[in-house]
Amino acid sequence: MILPILLIFSLLSSTSNAAVQDFCVADLTGPDTPSGFACKKPAVVTVNDFVFSGLGAGGNTSNIIKAAVTPAFADKFAGVNGLGISMARLDLAVGGVIPMHTHPGGSEVLVVISGSICAGFISSSDNKVYFKSLKKGDIMVFPRGLLHFQINAGGTPALAFVSFSSERPGLQILDFALFANDLPSEIIEMTTFLDDAQVKKLKGVLGGTG
Amino acid sequence: MILPILLIFSLLSSTSNAAVQDFCVADLTGPDTPSGFACKKPAVVTVNDFVFSGLGAGGNTSNIIKAAVTPAFADKFAGVNGLGISMARLDLAVGGVIPMHTHPGGSEVLVVISGSICAGFISSSDNKVYFKSLKKGDIMVFPRGLLHFQINAGGTPALAFVSFSSERPGLQILDFALFANDLPSEIIEMTTFLDDAQVKKLKGVLGGTG
Amino acid sequence: MILPILLIFSLLSSTSNAAVQDFCVADLTGPDTPSGFACKKPAVVTVNDFVFSGLGAGGNTSNIIKAAVTPAFADKFAGVNGLGISMARLDLAVGGVIPMHTHPGGSEVLVVISGSICAGFISSSDNKVYFKSLKKGDIMVFPRGLLHFQINAGGTPALAFVSFSSERPGLQILDFALFANDLPSEIIEMTTFLDDAQVKKLKGVLGGTG
Amino acid sequence: MILPILLIFSLLSSTSNAAVQDFCVADLTGPDTPSGFACKKPAVVTVNDFVFSGLGAGGNTSNIIKAAVTPAFADKFAGVNGLGISMARLDLAVGGVIPMHTHPGGSEVLVVISGSICAGFISSSDNKVYFKSLKKGDIMVFPRGLLHFQINAGGTPALAFVSFSSERPGLQILDFALFANDLPSEIIEMTTFLDDAQVKKLKGVLGGTG
Amino acid sequence: MILPILLIFSLLSSTSNAAVQDFCVADLTGPDTPSGFACKKPAVVTVNDFVFSGLGAGGNTSNIIKAAVTPAFADKFAGVNGLGISMARLDLAVGGVIPMHTHPGGSEVLVVISGSICAGFISSSDNKVYFKSLKKGDIMVFPRGLLHFQINAGGTPALAFVSFSSERPGLQILDFALFANDLPSEIIEMTTFLDDAQVKKLKGVLGGTG
Amino acid sequence: MILPILLIFSLLSSTSNAAVQDFCVADLTGPDTPSGFACKKPAVVTVNDFVFSGLGAGGNTSNIIKAAVTPAFADKFAGVNGLGISMARLDLAVGGVIPMHTHPGGSEVLVVISGSICAGFISSSDNKVYFKSLKKGDIMVFPRGLLHFQINAGGTPALAFVSFSSERPGLQILDFALFANDLPSEIIEMTTFLDDAQVKKLKGVLGGTG
Repeated sequence: MILPILLIFSLLSSTSNAAVQDFCVADLTGPDTPSGFACKKPAVVTVNDFVFSGLGAGGNTSNIIKAAVTPAFADKFAGVNGLGISMARLDLAVGGVIPMHTHPGGSEVLVVISGSICAGFISSSDNKVYFKSLKKGDIMVFPRGLLHFQINAGGTPALAFVSFSSERPGLQILDFALFANDLPSEIIEMTTFLDDAQVKKLKGVLGGTG
Repeated sequence: MILPILLIFSLLSSTSNAAVQDFCVADLTGPDTPSGFACKKPAVVTVNDFVFSGLGAGGNTSNIIKAAVTPAFADKFAGVNGLGISMARLDLAVGGVIPMHTHPGGSEVLVVISGSICAGFISSSDNKVYFKSLKKGDIMVFPRGLLHFQINAGGTPALAFVSFSSERPGLQILDFALFANDLPSEIIEMTTFLDDAQVKKLKGVLGGTG
Repeated sequence: MILPILLIFSLLSSTSNAAVQDFCVADLTGPDTPSGFACKKPAVVTVNDFVFSGLGAGGNTSNIIKAAVTPAFADKFAGVNGLGISMARLDLAVGGVIPMHTHPGGSEVLVVISGSICAGFISSSDNKVYFKSLKKGDIMVFPRGLLHFQINAGGTPALAFVSFSSERPGLQILDFALFANDLPSEIIEMTTFLDDAQVKKLKGVLGGTG
Repeated sequence: MILPILLIFSLLSSTSNAAVQDFCVADLTGPDTPSGFACKKPAVVTVNDFVFSGLGAGGNTSNIIKAAVTPAFADKFAGVNGLGISMARLDLAVGGVIPMHTHPGGSEVLVVISGSICAGFISSSDNKVYFKSLKKGDIMVFPRGLLHFQINAGGTPALAFVSFSSERPGLQILDFALFANDLPSEIIEMTTFLDDAQVKKLKGVLGGTG
Repeated sequence: MILPILLIFSLLSSTSNAAVQDFCVADLTGPDTPSGFACKKPAVVTVNDFVFSGLGAGGNTSNIIKAAVTPAFADKFAGVNGLGISMARLDLAVGGVIPMHTHPGGSEVLVVISGSICAGFISSSDNKVYFKSLKKGDIMVFPRGLLHFQINAGGTPALAFVSFSSERPGLQILDFALFANDLPSEIIEMTTFLDDAQVKKLKGVLGGTG
Repeated sequence: MILPILLIFSLLSSTSNAAVQDFCVADLTGPDTPSGFACKKPAVVTVNDFVFSGLGAGGNTSNIIKAAVTPAFADKFAGVNGLGISMARLDLAVGGVIPMHTHPGGSEVLVVISGSICAGFISSSDNKVYFKSLKKGDIMVFPRGLLHFQINAGGTPALAFVSFSSERPGLQILDFALFANDLPSEIIEMTTFLDDAQVKKLKGVLGGTG
């Protein structure tokens, strides 16, 4: 009876590795494309490509925002390449803030693991603000591309995990986009209505030039 | 100076609510479509549509699998409608198991919040199994549509949050699909090679007929 | 010979109106969905649903930004509903500026019709700024969701048309998102590092409260 | 032991009908949207929504093209709504021809069931023609939107089934598009370089006016 | 008159091969990506890339399932790469069965060419079974990712062609996923509720270890 | 205070270039894929990849159609690769015509910059023609894959810019597809009902053989 079995095995499984694409683990040495990184050869893929331990420890919050974002996007967590999902860890010390930012490439859901977080986003249609203080176990969704923020709203450190509807959602932090590069101050001022002194002060803090 | 300001306000914001679609909060009383539920009118949307507190408490694990899945899909968490993301909470008591299942509509990432979980999935191309014991803070991705499972691998209750790359990923639990409906036992046996006694035993447990 | 012809006519065209979906002209009285507005009945669709004359005249630039954005998104230009494309007209008087903004839902290409425009965007990965002075006939692309701006760079009025890779790309103007709503000043300051005086000054100009 | 079972049943299946969207059977009485027809309520869906018998009989080929196309698109075969797939049956009597046409919304694969068919398509990049005589069991793919045709290449009737990568791929038959409506002959002639006599002759055959 | 013609030829066709992407024939020697295989250079593409004759002959049904699946996915049928469609041939001898399986990456339509086939699928939302006996010419759709099966329901061999809404839909056969690899029996038993004897018996038949 | 700042800089920006994909500028020396060309390394991308000046000058209209199409698709305008948008310039001398054509890969919007243009398209569902004379500033949308045309409707040269919902929409000009290649005249005649003399006349003009 073993022989016929082997026969269907080969027939039914004639679908080779290449025929399906259950996953496409990122090969960072291969070309990058609009749909994601090229795939590792199936033969070298292991379970460790699908598991990431880098979110297990809190990020360093000894900085002016008293907070840390630790991403697990496709460049670090190769297994999510092409699957339309990824994660990050947010650590907010007491007084910590994740400054106003967007993810150009995906929506986000946040779950509070400990502490309390005031989170919100701003709609583009009517500039309406949606914000709320979240407690442990609450989840909140931030629609794709909209400005949003998270603030530690309690007296203890807060921890949250966030997931994205893209394996490479991007992260555009407003202050870094405006003040941490060489965009001429004059252009910043014309396009944001901010005062020259304000712009130069923040460029000083964030390392901007021009 | 106030007048001209109001002018640009009206000009620039002539983009009305309907012109953009930052989000489409599910209106469960409206029609359902291939892209999701119809949208609530923007005027009645509040921050509470984007926040869900139903994952804050553990599910009841006093059952034979000693586990509970609490979903926050678009029907319960209206704000994710159309955004391609959703979440669920997994509670696994000691000895708890989330049985073999698939999500036909999306990939999943899991983050272990407490305890230890042995999780795995089976590739479709070569039937290769990818599984590993995950500890607190580890994350793992399960590609769309593939059979996978989670088992409490430790001596304490385990808690995990899972996110999906779809607001309605679906959940097909193998045993329920086979043994909790009226699919004739003869068909089950022909298509799974399971013995008649095994099929009838599990139908008895899970309430299947036929 | 006429009879058999009518026969194939009916056979080949047995594909009814409902069978194909060449287009889905927006019916603003019907439900809105994640994929766009419900479709008008084919019988009431006319060529005027696919033509829009609202971009023929310049917008009013007598305002503090000396500029105007006139959109032709799916709510005004019903024919683009579901087709993944739309347009807008930009008028920049001498000294005019389209302030820093994003389109959460789509990429943009701009073509300069008259005058000269300095346009740029900021990358999210490394905060690098890409900007250039564009002359008549030049086109520039602004990737989805990234902060960008346009400034009249010459001594004459400038005119440009922009197209989007979405029929409802959205428009989030940074200053309006921050200063034209009721987001508490304290939250703005914590999440943007802006000074209190600066925030209150701009709230005063743009009508913000809180 | 029955009680705890019922418990997990309710827990695990707390995923209600609305939470998943395994399918969205077309409700032709509801609104149409860019993503497809509104869905029938799950409670009224039966297996007959997923089965279609209308392709079982050959179409009437007693017409000038000696051929018939019988579609099973979402308006007739409600179960495919939203699933991105559909079918049609091609009957070609001896000498039968499916005239030059496109499917604006999807790619097509054809399988020859009986007889022999000469099929081909024309690339848009370099106007290169790809055509071949297909025998029973051969399959051929026609990329989305490209002009293609099928001709009975043998001395017996030919039968083929075609599948599309869309549930509503559309069907634009060149001669019907040009000569079976009220497009003024002058415009046809200017845009196709065809002679006036040729245009009027075919309008006569196909019922065109203007 | 020939000269000006050549002129528009070069002008209008200045759209080079690279500018359009009518198709992307799979180059199996190039990188694989989330959107499919890299494309062959247009210059080496021939009509044979778009035609496949491998479904012309019946698969070998001399095996325990008395059936054969012969796929024409993108790895074998290079022309479908990137086009979102593919096919397979099903041969079912008398008593033949295509066992319970899923396609993680696409929906399927089946057309019965000869014989009679009992086919069905199981919904994920309420575990409802949809099955029916299909006769020659009937078509049935199986939504993406759901468990389904096909059984020869008559006294003669049956033949069917199936099409998929993906060029690489995948094929996960339940018994092979559970019993033809090294997934430990203990884990299978915990996650499926199957008895140890049943698991070991099927591992013996299908070659599983552990 | 500089030190802690640098700290968050490195933490928050730990999102490396590879982690996001704001854009994927086409590297024409790399592989082509179903989702577009491989990406240039971020380090070599400059603003000039996002700006294209090739539409600044009118195309040569000294040809029989008295018109020119100048495309800015991803092969020429590398910055649009993967972004789902592109442009082209239409120049129509007095009497100029853009002949009947389709874009298999995308919808189009046209804006009239000068002159007057009669433009139209033909629906596939009922062969209904939608056409209108457009004046300066009017915009019109042409749904994906449908036959359409543009004719200079005035006594002066006309200029228009068109945008597409794809970075490589394709361009299939009907007369070139039929008469500028080696498709045998007999096949053309069978599949279009055109007379032999007409086919041979146009093959003569457009360089077709066979």
